[in-house]
Amino acid sequence: MIPKEDILEILDGYDKKDLTIATICSHSSLQIFNGARQEGFKTIGICIGPPPKFYDAFPLAKPDKFVSLDSYKALLDHSDELVEDNAIIIPHGSLVEYLGIDKFESLAVPTFGNRRVLAWESDREMEREWLLKAGVNIPMRFERAEDIDRPVIVKYHGAKGGRGFFIAKNKDEFQAKMSSQAKYAIQEFILGTRYYIHFFYSPIKTQGYKLKKGTLDMLGIDRRVESNADEIFRIGSMNELAEAGIYPSFVVTGNLPLVLRESLLPKVFELGERVVETSIELFGGMIGPFSLETIVTDELEFKVFEISARIVAGTNLFVSGSPYSDLVERNLSNGKRIAQEIKLAMETNKLSEVIS
Amino acid sequence: MIPKEDILEILDGYDKKDLTIATICSHSSLQIFNGARQEGFKTIGICIGPPPKFYDAFPLAKPDKFVSLDSYKALLDHSDELVEDNAIIIPHGSLVEYLGIDKFESLAVPTFGNRRVLAWESDREMEREWLLKAGVNIPMRFERAEDIDRPVIVKYHGAKGGRGFFIAKNKDEFQAKMSSQAKYAIQEFILGTRYYIHFFYSPIKTQGYKLKKGTLDMLGIDRRVESNADEIFRIGSMNELAEAGIYPSFVVTGNLPLVLRESLLPKVFELGERVVETSIELFGGMIGPFSLETIVTDELEFKVFEISARIVAGTNLFVSGSPYSDLVERNLSNGKRIAQEIKLAMETNKLSEVIS
Amino acid sequence: MIPKEDILEILDGYDKKDLTIATICSHSSLQIFNGARQEGFKTIGICIGPPPKFYDAFPLAKPDKFVSLDSYKALLDHSDELVEDNAIIIPHGSLVEYLGIDKFESLAVPTFGNRRVLAWESDREMEREWLLKAGVNIPMRFERAEDIDRPVIVKYHGAKGGRGFFIAKNKDEFQAKMSSQAKYAIQEFILGTRYYIHFFYSPIKTQGYKLKKGTLDMLGIDRRVESNADEIFRIGSMNELAEAGIYPSFVVTGNLPLVLRESLLPKVFELGERVVETSIELFGGMIGPFSLETIVTDELEFKVFEISARIVAGTNLFVSGSPYSDLVERNLSNGKRIAQEIKLAMETNKLSEVIS
Repeated sequence: MIPKEDILEILDGYDKKDLTIATICSHSSLQIFNGARQEGFKTIGICIGPPPKFYDAFPLAKPDKFVSLDSYKALLDHSDELVEDNAIIIPHGSLVEYLGIDKFESLAVPTFGNRRVLAWESDREMEREWLLKAGVNIPMRFERAEDIDRPVIVKYHGAKGGRGFFIAKNKDEFQAKMSSQAKYAIQEFILGTRYYIHFFYSPIKTQGYKLKKGTLDMLGIDRRVESNADEIFRIGSMNELAEAGIYPSFVVTGNLPLVLRESLLPKVFELGERVVETSIELFGGMIGPFSLETIVTDELEFKVFEISARIVAGTNLFVSGSPYSDLVERNLSNGKRIAQEIKLAMETNKLSEVIS
Repeated sequence: MIPKEDILEILDGYDKKDLTIATICSHSSLQIFNGARQEGFKTIGICIGPPPKFYDAFPLAKPDKFVSLDSYKALLDHSDELVEDNAIIIPHGSLVEYLGIDKFESLAVPTFGNRRVLAWESDREMEREWLLKAGVNIPMRFERAEDIDRPVIVKYHGAKGGRGFFIAKNKDEFQAKMSSQAKYAIQEFILGTRYYIHFFYSPIKTQGYKLKKGTLDMLGIDRRVESNADEIFRIGSMNELAEAGIYPSFVVTGNLPLVLRESLLPKVFELGERVVETSIELFGGMIGPFSLETIVTDELEFKVFEISARIVAGTNLFVSGSPYSDLVERNLSNGKRIAQEIKLAMETNKLSEVIS
Repeated sequence: MIPKEDILEILDGYDKKDLTIATICSHSSLQIFNGARQEGFKTIGICIGPPPKFYDAFPLAKPDKFVSLDSYKALLDHSDELVEDNAIIIPHGSLVEYLGIDKFESLAVPTFGNRRVLAWESDREMEREWLLKAGVNIPMRFERAEDIDRPVIVKYHGAKGGRGFFIAKNKDEFQAKMSSQAKYAIQEFILGTRYYIHFFYSPIKTQGYKLKKGTLDMLGIDRRVESNADEIFRIGSMNELAEAGIYPSFVVTGNLPLVLRESLLPKVFELGERVVETSIELFGGMIGPFSLETIVTDELEFKVFEISARIVAGTNLFVSGSPYSDLVERNLSNGKRIAQEIKLAMETNKLSEVIS
């Protein structure tokens, strides 16, 4: 990983009154560019080949400038160009996916947030250690098929975007459905309803929901729309479908908005607080937007099944505010919140605390 | 119940230019506090123990002051403190649930709405009488198992928040699933899609959708998210699940936003109108926010399966307005509408008509 | 169809500074009236019998004037009255449904959009030709039952609003469920998640996402709520239900809001672009709002199963803007966009290009 000192040295050379916010043209870029403009930043869109035409349709979210690459790997060769523009990169899911962790970690451009979170988030074992240390409820894991005593979800190793998962109601069903050649993990399938909660941790803001250091926002909630799992049950139960050779898949195609029972908010903030405080102990903190992917059971308990340590695509629902962020500041999007954080850091001379 | 004269006497002592809006710190309190502030009221949050920290995260919805209690029952001993602050309490689901009907009815603090609605809403027989008298369609009830000739939902007596319900497609399934020891009610299970419609009845407003006296607003629609019923079918049909010892439950964990076909709006207002007009005859009227919980069949008919005679949590989706309330006034929430009603009552010297 | 020259002659007699926007009081009329008012137009609501009372509840969307008819057919006899008011009619689904294509095509009042689209949209064969020519993916069609090799949806001819559809997982199920007397079409049932995408094509706007002529907006996405299909699976799988004599139906009762993965936006605009460009070749263009009804598979591919060539009811979710339209202009509804288009046409002397 590029040493933080190197990043701070680059940052030293920046004209702080002329910062630019840059991101890859995908995932949540419309919102990031829109929010940056709202806070007075210039913007750069990083893309493969010619600038995507669809930005023309969204004048309030079109970046001021595009940096066109031949491939995402080529981004490493264009760091000078970004540095010349005093650019701060906002990482999102597509950036990490396209670039790979190694290349992202070595990118010689100041990046919003703490790059050390990636190792912890992308490795299932480390993520599990993090969640357990935070003391939040997570789904059980079964090491041996014979221990299965409840519904399980089985994830093949290396499966991407939801493909290669399957659900079994019990041990018998697991054994009937399991294909022997693949490596897999068996996890308790929690019965309940999914809520993907959007948080924002600031190490430098002093007003708000206070942690040991800094503050925590909760800016919205979405539910992922999964293809084909969300609609497949229109044609039959999982067993009936399996007999016809049809299987559910869990590829995220979009998101829909939700709110939670207000009486659950204390628990929501406690979850966010625990995960952030533990991240500070483990690796210096998860800074900026993150999401906890939870299931709320009929006992009104939260089970956390994943952390996304960056802005999640579900925030795209709330480019003009959510039922939660509107109570922080009207029309506050995650993209705008990121820009505000960079602005605050700049104004209080604390960029080094939110950049890596 | 505390006599209305006593409440009016307390109100007489209030400094009308310095009213405070108070509610229990749960359910829809963020929206109520936010709306009260928008209309220039001071706010009090009533809580158990120290003030909930999560309000710090929502500066536009944080009450000006907290009244901390040891238990909700202790609220009755703190009425003086609230009265000193010229407080009007906004009841919501949690207030009634925590305090109990008897204690709520005897609370010596002016309360928004008509407390007499509680008896009618909380008793299934009285609610049924109300709906039948209003002439709206309600699900059939089966007194005897042998009469079951369609899908039914069976509700055990005293079951709370959706637990202890089950659904049977027909008589055979009912008999197979029924546990003999419990008391239960058998209700037709209406096939269709659920719409929870948010109304507001004002006895004093003169502009708008007019009733015999006052006006009716429709401010939004939600669908409740039920755990685990909303997602359980991912793992099997109800029968397959039952064989594995897994049963659906219907605990509300949150809400999602919806709109209805516009051609159904005349029916929607007719439903609201009938229920309000009947409430006036029966007990002097259901004042302020209420919700009709409906199912729309594939014949585009509404079946009303419940009335909530207070602000419902589904309105939390719309703290900055809904696709309906935005056509009344931009960004109008239910919380703001309540505050507007109190303000109008104050300015037109009609507080006695909206307070009990 | 009334010749365009006749319409242009009528338009010649209009006082262009005093145009009125008129539509039938149903479907998406609240939004159309609200948008028209926002852009400074007067509005006329066309209704059967006395003005619907529900508009009183929505002061920001109540038309300035009502034209009350005995029947929709009587609209043809009232064209003079509308012309006197310099009215431009905005067609929507209910207008066409109530009036019938022939009567709508002969209506002697200037109408927003290209009336020639109706023939192409309402005839399944012509619509299919249009989509195939546009080169977008559409569901397969099976001419013979013995060719069925995947899940299919079977549509009886003349079935309206979703009634009279059924789904079969394979050939055997098809044959078991088929009733022999009816005419039907067999279409591939695409497994995936439904997205109804709201576009707006302007032949006269010069800024934005450019087509050969004019520009394309994408203003929102909804998912239709279908009764009883969306909730029927709570009581059993399709086969279990069929045994109990219960069948799913697909009647649209409302809509819920969604967003799509941002990485799919280039494909979304490509779909819109292809369908519009082809419409220009085929019949002079589909002008104004339209919707593509798509399914996104777990391979992240779009299948287009229908075009709606007018404003769709799903846009009613977004009377104050959507996560997409807010990036074009804050709080932009489809209704407002229509009014803007008429205003721009008027100001640039191009009404003839958006009216027929």
